[in-house]
Amino acid sequence: MTKRLAILGSTGSIGTQTLDIVANDPDSYRVEALAAGTNLPLLLEQIRQFRPSKVSVADREHAERLKAHLSEPVQVYYGEEGLQEVASQTEADIVITAVVGSQGLKPTLAAIEAGKHIGLANKETLVSAGHLVTEKAARQGVKLLPVDSEHSAIFQCLNGESPEDIAKLILTASGGSFRDRTREELHGVTVEDALKHPNWSMGAKITIDSATMVNKGLEVIEAHWLFGIPYDRIEVLLHPESVIHSMIEFVDNSVMAQLGNPDMRVPIQYALTYPRRKKTPTDMLNLAEIGRLNFREMDYNRFPCLRIAFDCGREGGTATTVFNAANEEAVARFLKGEISFLQIEDVLAWVLDEHVTKKNPELEEILQADQWARERAGQFRP
Amino acid sequence: MTKRLAILGSTGSIGTQTLDIVANDPDSYRVEALAAGTNLPLLLEQIRQFRPSKVSVADREHAERLKAHLSEPVQVYYGEEGLQEVASQTEADIVITAVVGSQGLKPTLAAIEAGKHIGLANKETLVSAGHLVTEKAARQGVKLLPVDSEHSAIFQCLNGESPEDIAKLILTASGGSFRDRTREELHGVTVEDALKHPNWSMGAKITIDSATMVNKGLEVIEAHWLFGIPYDRIEVLLHPESVIHSMIEFVDNSVMAQLGNPDMRVPIQYALTYPRRKKTPTDMLNLAEIGRLNFREMDYNRFPCLRIAFDCGREGGTATTVFNAANEEAVARFLKGEISFLQIEDVLAWVLDEHVTKKNPELEEILQADQWARERAGQFRP
Repeated sequence: MTKRLAILGSTGSIGTQTLDIVANDPDSYRVEALAAGTNLPLLLEQIRQFRPSKVSVADREHAERLKAHLSEPVQVYYGEEGLQEVASQTEADIVITAVVGSQGLKPTLAAIEAGKHIGLANKETLVSAGHLVTEKAARQGVKLLPVDSEHSAIFQCLNGESPEDIAKLILTASGGSFRDRTREELHGVTVEDALKHPNWSMGAKITIDSATMVNKGLEVIEAHWLFGIPYDRIEVLLHPESVIHSMIEFVDNSVMAQLGNPDMRVPIQYALTYPRRKKTPTDMLNLAEIGRLNFREMDYNRFPCLRIAFDCGREGGTATTVFNAANEEAVARFLKGEISFLQIEDVLAWVLDEHVTKKNPELEEILQADQWARERAGQFRP
Repeated sequence: MTKRLAILGSTGSIGTQTLDIVANDPDSYRVEALAAGTNLPLLLEQIRQFRPSKVSVADREHAERLKAHLSEPVQVYYGEEGLQEVASQTEADIVITAVVGSQGLKPTLAAIEAGKHIGLANKETLVSAGHLVTEKAARQGVKLLPVDSEHSAIFQCLNGESPEDIAKLILTASGGSFRDRTREELHGVTVEDALKHPNWSMGAKITIDSATMVNKGLEVIEAHWLFGIPYDRIEVLLHPESVIHSMIEFVDNSVMAQLGNPDMRVPIQYALTYPRRKKTPTDMLNLAEIGRLNFREMDYNRFPCLRIAFDCGREGGTATTVFNAANEEAVARFLKGEISFLQIEDVLAWVLDEHVTKKNPELEEILQADQWARERAGQFRP
C-alpha cells in the first residue's frame, strides 16, 4: 500500500534523508506536501522529482520567487499558516515533523488534530508541550513515531514487550565534538570546532546541542513523554562510537539494544514501514571491523546542561519550554559570535533562574513562556 | 497463574538454576516432576524443598537407594522410561529439557506428544532430530522456548518482528577457555585447563564444547531449526566478554541485540514468563563499569569444528546427528584422558568421513546413526 507523506523541513538534514528513502522505493510512497524555509533551489528540485500538490516556504517573498520558477501545478503557501496547511490539509497519512526548534509545535498539533500519524523528528515539540501533544495524540488515536536514532532504538526495543516490564531507559550519548576535552579546554573554542561532530552528519543547531549535551537533555525529556517513563528511570551512558543507539533494561535484568551505523535513514524509514522493515540504501553494521565499543559513565560536572535538563524535566510545566527556548536563542547567539561556547550554559542557568514555572500550562502559556525565554536569553550580556 | 513445571536434569547446572528461579518466586510455580541421574543427596534436597509428585533417577539401583531415604509421598521411576514418565505423564505445562546429550531426544518427543511446551536447554535434541521435533511441535501447537542464552537472545530480538524481515542471525561466541591460544599452543593442554571457562559456569561437557567451538556449532544448527533460517544467513562473531548474547540483523540494516551479565537464570526465567518479564535474582548489567566490548571475526582455521558443524548443517539428514554423537564420545574420551584435546576434531572428521548421510531420517534411523557414530568414535586410535 502506498504511504502518503507530508514533510515539514524538506530541505534540512532529516527532510532530504526522508526523500532519499522515498526515492529508493518510489512505488511505496507518495509525497503529498513539502514545507521548506528559504532554500529555493533545492525545494524546486524536490518539487520536480516528487510532485507534491502543496508546498510552503518561509515568507511571502520566497513564495513569490518560487512561483516565478515553477512550471508544476503546485499550490504555494508560506509562513506559519503555510506550515499548518502542509501539516494538516492534505491526503497524507503521516507527517514528518523535521523543522528545527519550537516552530514545530503548532503544525504538529494541527497534524494530530487532522488525524495524521506523526514521524517525530522535531524533539522540541514534546519538550515544550509534551503533555498537550501526547494527550491530543491519544485522543485522536494518532501514533507518535520517533524518527531520531535514540528514540527509534527504544521504540524498536519495546517491540512485543509490555511497558510495565521496563526498569530503565538507557540513552547513549556520543559526547559530541568536544567529548575528549576538559572544561578548561572549552574556553575559546570556535563555532567551526563545535560544528565537527565525530559520528553524525547533522544540522548546525543539533551539532552544537550535541557538544553542550543539551541535545541529550532534550532527548531525555522527549523520551519521558514518548514512553511515559519517570526521569528517575532514564539514564544517559557515554558511548563514543554511537553504534548502540539506545537500550531498555527490563525488570528481569535483560537489556535490549538497537545497533547500527550512524545513518538516520534507518530510523526514518522504520517510522514509515513500522511494524515491518524493508531494505534501506545504507551500509550493514560490521562489528568485527569496528572491533570495540566503549562505554563510560556520564559526567554531569563536565556536561552541566544535561543536569539542568533533568532538573527542568522533574520540575515540569513551562520549565522545559524555557530550557528549550533559551537554548535556541543561546545557540543562535553563539553561532553569530555574540557569546562563547561555555556561555550557552550560563544563559540557560540565568534565564531558568528567573523563570517562575507554570504547571500544566495551556498552549498560549507555553507560547508566552517560550517568547519570554527567548527575549531574556537575548538580553544576556557576556 | 501458577506455572507447572517438570525438569529433566534437575541436579545439573540448568536444572539447579531453574529451581533457583522457582525458589525466588514460589507462588508463581509448582514443580510437578524432577528427573536426575545419580546425585541422590541433591535430588533428596530438591524433593524436600519442591515436593514433586514424580521423580526419576539413572537406574534401578539408584531408585531403590532413593526410596530408602524418602519420607515424602513421591513416585520414583528410573532409566529411559523414567525420563519419559517425568516428561509426559504429569500435569506440567512446560518441560525443561536440561539433560545433557542425545538422551534428551526421546523424552522431549514424548513431552511434545503430550502437548507440553518445551523449555529447550538440551540443544542436541534439535541437532540430532530437528526436522522431527519442529514438525511435531508445530502439529501439536507446542512452543519450543529456548533456554540457552544465545537462542533466548535471538528469541527476544524477534519479539514483535516479522521473521521474513530477518537478514541474518549473529550468534556471539566467547571463544571458550583457550580463545587466546594459537593452535600450536593447544598441544598437550590438560582437562583441567579446558574446564576453566572465562565467563560462564557450566557443566564439563559444555565447557569442553565451548573450547572446541563445537558448542557454537551445535547452537548454529539449533538456531537453524528454531528460527527456520538457512545456514548462509547465520553468522558467528567472536565477542570475548559474552555481554551481547546474540543479535538479529534485519533487512533495513537495523540490528537488535540482547545483553546481560552471563547468568543463565535470565534466559531460563524468560522461557517461563514469556512474553512477560519479572524480577530475577541476578545482577544488573553495568556497561560503564565493563568499559568496553570487543569483537572480532570468527577464525574457521583456528576453530575447525565450527566449520565442520556448518558443513554438517548444510548436508542435513543424519550428518548433524553423527556430528553430535561422535563429539559426545570424543569429549568423554578426552575427559577420561584417552585422547588429546586436538584429537576431538580428528575424531569428528574421521567418523563423519565414513558416514553415509541418510536424508529425512525416521527416529529409528536417527538413533541408529547416533549409536553407530558413538561406536566408531570409540574405535578411534590416537
